[in-house]
Amino acid sequence: MAFELTKEFLADIRRYIVAQDVHWFKEHVLGLHSADIADILDELSNEEAKYIFALLDEEQQGDVLMELEEDVRDRFLKSLSSKEFAEQLENLDSDDAADILGDLSAQEIQEVISQMEDDSAADDIVDLLNYDEDSAGGLMQKEFIQARLNWPVNRCLVELRRQAEDVEMVYTIYVVDDQNRLVGVLSLKRLLFAKPTTKIADLYQSNNIISVKTTDSHETVARVIEKYDLISVPVVDFQNKLVGRITIDDVVDVIKEEADKDFQLASGISEKVESNASIWRLSRSRLPWLLIGLLGGILGAQVISTFEGQIGKIPALAFFIPLITAMGGNVGVQSSAIVVQSLAKGNQFSSLFKKVSKEALLGLLNGAICSSIIFGIAFLFEDLILALVVSISLFAVIMFAAIFGTLIPLVLDRYRVDPAVATGPFITTLNDVLGLFIYFLIGLLLYS
Amino acid sequence: MAFELTKEFLADIRRYIVAQDVHWFKEHVLGLHSADIADILDELSNEEAKYIFALLDEEQQGDVLMELEEDVRDRFLKSLSSKEFAEQLENLDSDDAADILGDLSAQEIQEVISQMEDDSAADDIVDLLNYDEDSAGGLMQKEFIQARLNWPVNRCLVELRRQAEDVEMVYTIYVVDDQNRLVGVLSLKRLLFAKPTTKIADLYQSNNIISVKTTDSHETVARVIEKYDLISVPVVDFQNKLVGRITIDDVVDVIKEEADKDFQLASGISEKVESNASIWRLSRSRLPWLLIGLLGGILGAQVISTFEGQIGKIPALAFFIPLITAMGGNVGVQSSAIVVQSLAKGNQFSSLFKKVSKEALLGLLNGAICSSIIFGIAFLFEDLILALVVSISLFAVIMFAAIFGTLIPLVLDRYRVDPAVATGPFITTLNDVLGLFIYFLIGLLLYS
Repeated sequence: MAFELTKEFLADIRRYIVAQDVHWFKEHVLGLHSADIADILDELSNEEAKYIFALLDEEQQGDVLMELEEDVRDRFLKSLSSKEFAEQLENLDSDDAADILGDLSAQEIQEVISQMEDDSAADDIVDLLNYDEDSAGGLMQKEFIQARLNWPVNRCLVELRRQAEDVEMVYTIYVVDDQNRLVGVLSLKRLLFAKPTTKIADLYQSNNIISVKTTDSHETVARVIEKYDLISVPVVDFQNKLVGRITIDDVVDVIKEEADKDFQLASGISEKVESNASIWRLSRSRLPWLLIGLLGGILGAQVISTFEGQIGKIPALAFFIPLITAMGGNVGVQSSAIVVQSLAKGNQFSSLFKKVSKEALLGLLNGAICSSIIFGIAFLFEDLILALVVSISLFAVIMFAAIFGTLIPLVLDRYRVDPAVATGPFITTLNDVLGLFIYFLIGLLLYS
Repeated sequence: MAFELTKEFLADIRRYIVAQDVHWFKEHVLGLHSADIADILDELSNEEAKYIFALLDEEQQGDVLMELEEDVRDRFLKSLSSKEFAEQLENLDSDDAADILGDLSAQEIQEVISQMEDDSAADDIVDLLNYDEDSAGGLMQKEFIQARLNWPVNRCLVELRRQAEDVEMVYTIYVVDDQNRLVGVLSLKRLLFAKPTTKIADLYQSNNIISVKTTDSHETVARVIEKYDLISVPVVDFQNKLVGRITIDDVVDVIKEEADKDFQLASGISEKVESNASIWRLSRSRLPWLLIGLLGGILGAQVISTFEGQIGKIPALAFFIPLITAMGGNVGVQSSAIVVQSLAKGNQFSSLFKKVSKEALLGLLNGAICSSIIFGIAFLFEDLILALVVSISLFAVIMFAAIFGTLIPLVLDRYRVDPAVATGPFITTLNDVLGLFIYFLIGLLLYS
């Protein structure tokens, strides 16, 4: 079943575009899944893509558009007139349309919206544009299916048929009262097997209704959908009125974006960037951490310069500088990674003390192992005092790194800074400076 | 709607367990969502949890069991007799039951299975145990709804009602031919609005049927579900016979586990561990990278010791060792993080050369900025030659780190090693050694 886009097929496509062979495309391309057609368009020039796009029916156009890579889609939409742009928006779900419009200027938005023919679709999009992009309101769509408490099943089926035209995927029917307040849910399965005269009020499930508020964050929505194993979650306003729904496929994107962001933050990349972003944006996203690293290096130089006389006398002290800094960094990153992940999973730290003491114990164990090894090696190749200096300070550095690696993400989280920041160069830099200080101080003590 | 487990509520629960007040639990606990009940049990002792668990009905028991934290669930199940264990398995979906059994020894599995009363459930579980845990077969469940091509809608509804008892969530009906081969899908929505006499053959969708093979990897399943925006995907064997389905909630877990694993690998943690694992397992998962870091430090010491005479003459050279190693590490981690993420997204590198040259360009830019800054500072506080040595070698180190950071994950991926390994201590260690060598070499050249 897997469609694989081969170079040969792509070459064929290019050739038949030049030949304008509609028949060939009908046979080989238009019947493909919209996600696969999007894969093809991603590889083509804008002009080539437009040729194929024009051959698709409206529904396919909408689906393909949302499956394109973001930069390809932007390029494509920018080449359209406001009129054509508006037509494309009408093929999309309200949340997708609002996401695309949200990237435009206020003037451009107005221009496109004014060209839309379907007023209710336009209203939905305008309404969605009001919500914060990172809130449940910004994630929800206006397409959902609702039934009233007092409807019988047959009335419900008639209404649903009408509503369902706009709704691509139906998973759950939301049940509302006369004031449009969410009172329960009804699975399609139950409706399917119910008698035509049964009232919705006798069928629906009213306890443990899970919903989110329009102002809830993306992370909250993802956590609720995951925790309660939902396929879609209804969104309500402050009066508990049903205003939209969020489906799990959008939440999967949120989960992946969160994971990507954490990974990047931990790797010292400060803004979310795609690998195909411009060289200037890439540079800007990476410089902050490099500058912090630079500052750390300069502070490290300061620490070492304080001990300049000692290095002049015992140059061998300098040999183990990279070992001390590297090990402090590694241990710190490991400890903080574990804490960051626990925090991301929403684990409550019932006892902060327990967490820190466990990492300290681990530091004790791993520190003892690593220090013993380095003591043996340094003793073999250098002398006893240097071996003592290196192993004792390595042990101390690992202990401190383990404890800081645990504490810093917890503290950041408490102050609502994304703790993933801590896993990266931040911990590494701090441990570098601290480690050097410990190392030379112990050197000073033991050599004097 | 959000249920929040407070300390007061937990204290109440403990008190009423002691008092054995069934009535209180009926009123305050049993009506909660199973995920919330599981949250409560997670906090209780095994004996306390058992008291509440026994009050739940069978379906709730299964749901709560699957929502418990893994170690709590293991502890709970271990305290049951084989008979009770078997009863609990019968409340679960086949995939969940197989996952739990999969962790037991062959003898234990046999013992529990022999105690199961529902033979068809036992057969399903035994069948699922045959598949590799990391394959689509290991992820799928046997509960799904199928219809035959030649059924009319009313026959289909009768059959579905029978099948649907076992299937918790119905999203899509899979359509099979007489040989049980998957030929299409049918949405519940279409079935709901169809005439009773219409044949399934006239209703179902037969083109672009997305399915996965039992032998496909978890990653493939996740990619297919994401790409095609599916809620569930049918699983077929080599003869295209329908054998199971995988639902998106299980795939979300896979996606999160993958992201967690990458994050841990990149942070130098070699096995997947929970933060509540034993101290020995935690230590074992972290030691490999610490030992590699140690080895790197020893190699670094070797490099510096080669230049011992130089440090004796110019101790200031030692000041900037941490700066050089830290910056090499930071740049390397940044570059590799971007490549690792692109690879994880399944991006094809149509041109490896393009990727490397972009990172090189970025290295050029960021290297120039950082080197200029450090030149100014070193010139101000030290002397011109040292400023030249530090800035030139920093520039070279950043360039190399950017290129290696890009190349190594690509090479690892080519040889089917998880490239996330490269983002962590591996790149850092390599860059440390290389960076030191460059630094002292340039020092030797400029000071001679």
